[in-house]
Amino acid sequence: MNSQDEFFNLDNPDQGIQRQLAEGISTRIFPGDQAMLSVVTLAPDAVGTLHSHAEEQWGVMLEGEAVRIQDGKEVPVRAGDFWRTPGGIEHSVRAGPQGARILDIFSPPREIYKTSGSGFGTD
Amino acid sequence: MNSQDEFFNLDNPDQGIQRQLAEGISTRIFPGDQAMLSVVTLAPDAVGTLHSHAEEQWGVMLEGEAVRIQDGKEVPVRAGDFWRTPGGIEHSVRAGPQGARILDIFSPPREIYKTSGSGFGTD
Repeated sequence: MNSQDEFFNLDNPDQGIQRQLAEGISTRIFPGDQAMLSVVTLAPDAVGTLHSHAEEQWGVMLEGEAVRIQDGKEVPVRAGDFWRTPGGIEHSVRAGPQGARILDIFSPPREIYKTSGSGFGTD
Repeated sequence: MNSQDEFFNLDNPDQGIQRQLAEGISTRIFPGDQAMLSVVTLAPDAVGTLHSHAEEQWGVMLEGEAVRIQDGKEVPVRAGDFWRTPGGIEHSVRAGPQGARILDIFSPPREIYKTSGSGFGTD
């Protein structure tokens, strides 16, 4: 593989594996060997589905505001905030009125996200 | 651990394990179970040290411009660009004249970065 193939951009709609996570929530997924990145776009007031998976997850709020639902708590988050979601912890997200963009990181990579599809997947 | 302890901010200087990577390049490190985040601040024209490690690495350009040196090539990068560095690949970075901020992701976590110190570490 040419090393140039390892360079991407958050705004390039032609890169990544497309996935519709929920109504108003879409993502582009970039699988690596040990970690997987997911560039998530949330429409205004879009709401995710409460779910969990064994893989560790980190989220980085790139734009907008949202409420992170995690381990039974609701935490307001805005651009610059980031968080860790240990494996097995139930979580979801609710976008603010301006929508949001979040970079999710999964480690190890989630198998179900390696192919295009829909939904959050669950264990 | 209270779930609130899993929430951080890119701009909070009191969070993370401090590390001086090189002259003009400092970071705050957040270790997880499967992945580790590193919020790197580069002074204008700061230059890293060419090195490699077994862990996979991803970099996300948060602010500024830089040249990513990876696998013998030099790739100009700016805010919004991101890249994957497979384990074992030599890499470094050279900040632009305005400096830069980069979010690095390591998986698995780098042991040497779990404690405060200096330098990039090498295998």
